[in-house]
Amino acid sequence: MHELAPPLTLEQGLRWLDLIGILAFAMSGALLGVRKRFDLFGVVVLGCVTAVGGGAIRDTLTGQTPPLFLRDETYLWMALLGAGLGFALGEGLARFERTLSVFDTVGLALFAASGAVGAINFGLGPLGVVFAGMLSGVGGGIVRDLIANEVPEVMYRRDQLYATAAAAGALVVVLLHPHVTSFQAQLGGALTI
Amino acid sequence: MHELAPPLTLEQGLRWLDLIGILAFAMSGALLGVRKRFDLFGVVVLGCVTAVGGGAIRDTLTGQTPPLFLRDETYLWMALLGAGLGFALGEGLARFERTLSVFDTVGLALFAASGAVGAINFGLGPLGVVFAGMLSGVGGGIVRDLIANEVPEVMYRRDQLYATAAAAGALVVVLLHPHVTSFQAQLGGALTI
Amino acid sequence: MHELAPPLTLEQGLRWLDLIGILAFAMSGALLGVRKRFDLFGVVVLGCVTAVGGGAIRDTLTGQTPPLFLRDETYLWMALLGAGLGFALGEGLARFERTLSVFDTVGLALFAASGAVGAINFGLGPLGVVFAGMLSGVGGGIVRDLIANEVPEVMYRRDQLYATAAAAGALVVVLLHPHVTSFQAQLGGALTI
Repeated sequence: MHELAPPLTLEQGLRWLDLIGILAFAMSGALLGVRKRFDLFGVVVLGCVTAVGGGAIRDTLTGQTPPLFLRDETYLWMALLGAGLGFALGEGLARFERTLSVFDTVGLALFAASGAVGAINFGLGPLGVVFAGMLSGVGGGIVRDLIANEVPEVMYRRDQLYATAAAAGALVVVLLHPHVTSFQAQLGGALTI
Repeated sequence: MHELAPPLTLEQGLRWLDLIGILAFAMSGALLGVRKRFDLFGVVVLGCVTAVGGGAIRDTLTGQTPPLFLRDETYLWMALLGAGLGFALGEGLARFERTLSVFDTVGLALFAASGAVGAINFGLGPLGVVFAGMLSGVGGGIVRDLIANEVPEVMYRRDQLYATAAAAGALVVVLLHPHVTSFQAQLGGALTI
Repeated sequence: MHELAPPLTLEQGLRWLDLIGILAFAMSGALLGVRKRFDLFGVVVLGCVTAVGGGAIRDTLTGQTPPLFLRDETYLWMALLGAGLGFALGEGLARFERTLSVFDTVGLALFAASGAVGAINFGLGPLGVVFAGMLSGVGGGIVRDLIANEVPEVMYRRDQLYATAAAAGALVVVLLHPHVTSFQAQLGGALTI
């Protein structure tokens, strides 16, 4: 534990990164729901589950229950906001394909990095950190695709970019960690992606 | 914690509601298994997983492991009973479509309410309570549909009724809670649905 | 707790059985990924998730977080090895159908037995032990099939053999347990299958 940054700043940083990731994933989940012609309720639920899925996996695996999104109400409000935005944009989404893909990648990077930092703080070994970071990053998307009854996108060729990026990001966090503060390491991991 | 009822009575009440919900969900899972032409084993497993899925999600999210259904053997026996009944009725089920739907809704209401009460006792905030209640209510059905390789029913129009009901029930529990005992609140939540 | 064997030996035994099971399941997951034409990344992820899925379910249900595969790096390396082997064999796999099926059954038996032993040590009742053992055994395969968007094989006729075997193995562990050491009971459970 080479923790140099004051805990408050680190936690605030993690929290903001997580919240942006949640917004991004909620939109991507909601938009898949729109595409699958779910009703309002289905779209919102799919958006929320996508948004909190990665973090829920991270927290459950590291034994931090209840997961953060249940302890900090802001997370669920952010997920609702993202899902609502996704539903509102709805039909006009074809135009935003590219933006969406950027959102997805941003959410993935942020979750992978915060998952990796969480795993490091928990004392896991390097391969465990990479795996936990990767699962946190791609977990929300996998849950999203399972519920929509599709083979998870991340398993196919174009998206290998994403999962590889998640692994790479988590790996960067591992490598940087002994030398810098957690927060800087996390930023580095996210930026790499 | 405005807990006025004696703990034993509350727990007994929760337990009976849970057990009835488990019976209902086990039948609904078993009947989907029959429809998908699973064999006896598949039908029983699908029934049991549907029955304990909602509670398992509730307990895992609130860190109460092992989940209740593993600590109290009655739960698994009840699930086996419901799944067995579902298998036995099997072919004759077309006639019971309506009854089934009632069973489903009853199970959903009971799990949503008990999930919400659990979340309140755990000290979660209002949105977290509604979300945890809702997930507990619809979780078993989502697991059932995922395993049967179908898009979860709850995502589609007719069934938004169910999920909305689950959310409403959990919300009622939240609103009632400061004013009445947990058990009364739970009954109120379940009856609303 | 009729624990006669020295803890170290028991734990070493469990660990080796688990590692062999992980290798077997990783291969079976990777080969399904190859068949579904996933790319290298998808194949490796599917193999790893299949390999650690059963144990992750077992550890999460019994509240032992983080799960063993994150605490002991050897597990993940073994999963990577199995997945890599599966990918390398890839196209030539039609020839190994029978071997694969043996691998699957071996992995299943080992996980069911180790899940049952874990549940006994945790103080669960007999039905809970059988259920936890069975879930640990078939859990990895169910996760594998869900991600590959197929109805879990275990639900269908030929494979009821597997799930029945898992239940029988776990049952043997329960029956033997009061009379012998855990490790012997586990061996007995695995051999029955």
